[in-house]
Amino acid sequence: MDSKDSSSQDVLEGEQLRVDLERIKRHILSLGEIGKNPADHGLYRMAFTDADMEAKRWLLDQIDGIGLESGSDGAGNIFGILMSGKKGPSLMIGSHIDTVPCAGTLDGSLGVVVGLECLRVMKHAKVPLKQDVELVAFCDEEGRFGGMLGSESFCGLTTPQTIQSARDTHGISLKDAMLKQGMDAIKILEANRDPRSVDRYLELHIEQGPVLDRQQLQVGIVDEITGLFRWNMRIQGESNHAGTTPMDMRCDAFMGLADFAHEIPRVLDEIGTERSRATIGTAEILPGAANTVPGTVEFSFDVRDTSEEILHSLQDAFRRALSVICRKRSLTFEFDEVSFIHPVKCDPLLVSKLEHHASVLGNESTKMHSGAAHDAQIMGRLWPVGMIFVPSRQGMSHSPAEWTAWSDIEAGANLMLQTLVDLAHPV
Amino acid sequence: MDSKDSSSQDVLEGEQLRVDLERIKRHILSLGEIGKNPADHGLYRMAFTDADMEAKRWLLDQIDGIGLESGSDGAGNIFGILMSGKKGPSLMIGSHIDTVPCAGTLDGSLGVVVGLECLRVMKHAKVPLKQDVELVAFCDEEGRFGGMLGSESFCGLTTPQTIQSARDTHGISLKDAMLKQGMDAIKILEANRDPRSVDRYLELHIEQGPVLDRQQLQVGIVDEITGLFRWNMRIQGESNHAGTTPMDMRCDAFMGLADFAHEIPRVLDEIGTERSRATIGTAEILPGAANTVPGTVEFSFDVRDTSEEILHSLQDAFRRALSVICRKRSLTFEFDEVSFIHPVKCDPLLVSKLEHHASVLGNESTKMHSGAAHDAQIMGRLWPVGMIFVPSRQGMSHSPAEWTAWSDIEAGANLMLQTLVDLAHPV
Repeated sequence: MDSKDSSSQDVLEGEQLRVDLERIKRHILSLGEIGKNPADHGLYRMAFTDADMEAKRWLLDQIDGIGLESGSDGAGNIFGILMSGKKGPSLMIGSHIDTVPCAGTLDGSLGVVVGLECLRVMKHAKVPLKQDVELVAFCDEEGRFGGMLGSESFCGLTTPQTIQSARDTHGISLKDAMLKQGMDAIKILEANRDPRSVDRYLELHIEQGPVLDRQQLQVGIVDEITGLFRWNMRIQGESNHAGTTPMDMRCDAFMGLADFAHEIPRVLDEIGTERSRATIGTAEILPGAANTVPGTVEFSFDVRDTSEEILHSLQDAFRRALSVICRKRSLTFEFDEVSFIHPVKCDPLLVSKLEHHASVLGNESTKMHSGAAHDAQIMGRLWPVGMIFVPSRQGMSHSPAEWTAWSDIEAGANLMLQTLVDLAHPV
Repeated sequence: MDSKDSSSQDVLEGEQLRVDLERIKRHILSLGEIGKNPADHGLYRMAFTDADMEAKRWLLDQIDGIGLESGSDGAGNIFGILMSGKKGPSLMIGSHIDTVPCAGTLDGSLGVVVGLECLRVMKHAKVPLKQDVELVAFCDEEGRFGGMLGSESFCGLTTPQTIQSARDTHGISLKDAMLKQGMDAIKILEANRDPRSVDRYLELHIEQGPVLDRQQLQVGIVDEITGLFRWNMRIQGESNHAGTTPMDMRCDAFMGLADFAHEIPRVLDEIGTERSRATIGTAEILPGAANTVPGTVEFSFDVRDTSEEILHSLQDAFRRALSVICRKRSLTFEFDEVSFIHPVKCDPLLVSKLEHHASVLGNESTKMHSGAAHDAQIMGRLWPVGMIFVPSRQGMSHSPAEWTAWSDIEAGANLMLQTLVDLAHPV
């Protein structure tokens, strides 16, 4: 432990501190080379691949280079700690550095690079600290093995059973993927952190949606993170000859689905909120011949809102709507709930601190909710959380086209820096 | 040529002739063993497979056994002729004995077996004939190689180019499939029949739809065979994150398709007739992830009516409907016309003869259209055609569950017999 920083007399006022955008650029571009496929310019840094492990080593090198305390845990989470010399819970900041296949350079990585820069500036400026400030890069946020392995393990939500059964979409087990990297999957359980060792969690992330970009705003201050339910649904009718079966003698499963899709706007208008989303993202039509009335459709249904009560009302309303459609059309239906993720409210203190500093910094900002899941959502189950969004150009994400103006990144990073300095400042 | 029959003095009156149902049963069941898969009880007698060739040999044996003149042509069509000793065009009757994969026993085969039985009865009864009566089993009605190879070749609608390029869905060329059976594909062109050598064409077929079965009728007398157009359509929107993209900022291609499906009943009510059908039988949703707003949908659209004018009006109306939907939803669309098959009107003389004999025989019958395509539709381009339908249990076809009550088969077969005797009778 190095207690020099917190006892230093040579402290700059927090308001004068600024991140170094050039350094952030360099880090984003360096990290953006790791796992890059020259053919499609996409990043392929899925959890526990060689590229992901290389990115972890890169990050540990940066942490060491700044002189932070570095470490990792059994779930592959990476840590860098700016020590305060004080006992007590850490103020945490983080995101993730794994990616989906064919990803852009900012999803996750930006939050980690900004956290690194904030800790560097605070260390160099010898900001007085009442608590450790801890950077985390969570492993497998993108869910190669199902959920958000890193933050879930950190929060004690992983069990031996989930570890044993986890496989990626190619059938590779988590155990084997980790073994290949010299890691023992059972040690994931050791990543479970003592709840008393963390105080709050802050995350900066690209919005991954079009709201800030359309409104030409620099930062979004997240007040709620959406919850969701996902259903795998199946409508069963009768497959028949498209020429010989009169329209009124059909049990056309696809037409049942079309009716259901048509009910989405009505149900959202009646039951939902402006934060509600409902999406039919996949559909398989069977038997799938141009001259055959579809007998079966299987489809996914993803519904989100920031209120758990609204989510339950939406479940009831959609179930009722489909039931009426199927009765009218002589169809049957069934569905499995694949997941139910609880919405999370951000900590009011963190939201108001972020709003205050955004205003002092002159950021063009708005309060908004997150429609996507993030590590902050998992962390929010145990600790107060806050999030900063920066705009995604044209709402693009999970694509090499993902981008954010450097000036917006700078604005978001300085907002994070000010907020950290404020929160960690001795009273 | 054997001119004994037509000059015989020992002629029974046509009205007293009846088919032998037991023989029809035996033939249906024998033919139903050729190409049968014991695992799923389905027939796999696709054109030019070993099973198809075996069925052709079986049929030629039956034709020879009855003492008809037998033959085949370069397209693999099989013929059996009841000779009249007179010059002039034949009265033709037929259907096909190839099947789709996993077929039932009646589709096509029933018409051939009934034709065989009619010619047997007429020959044995020494029915006086003014013209040859000719049975045909057309090759590849089920379109392994695209269209209806046998009847199209017979009608001169096949070209060297189509023969050269024809492939089945597994990529096997027509040329190779025929070569494997010792046949030369180029000889398909020789199947083209002199239009003056045929007088009329009659076909008995299972309905392949639910109308007769629901109405508990024995036979249908076809007055029109449906035409159709088939479009491969594509709606293009923008794929986006299902959680972060507000409902009003989406360009959801699937929702465009759902809107379009919803317009089908309106357009059919406004523009169509009770003989209109419109079916979305396949749809592919891209990129196809539960948490992604669909950016693209590709789907098939099959529209049928017995009036060519109505078909063209439906094309206009559906194009207009989709255009409005896409404009409202900021989508674009395009489509290819994969096929346009002209509707065919059955010959009024044949329809009235069939109605007359059905009434004399006491059949419970109705006039109806055919919603499916048949060899009769191709033959209808050159010659007057007529069709008899018998009921399909629960409208089932292209399935091992395909079935028709023996008593209905008997009724349909006797109607065919009476009509043939009437038509071929010397004035």
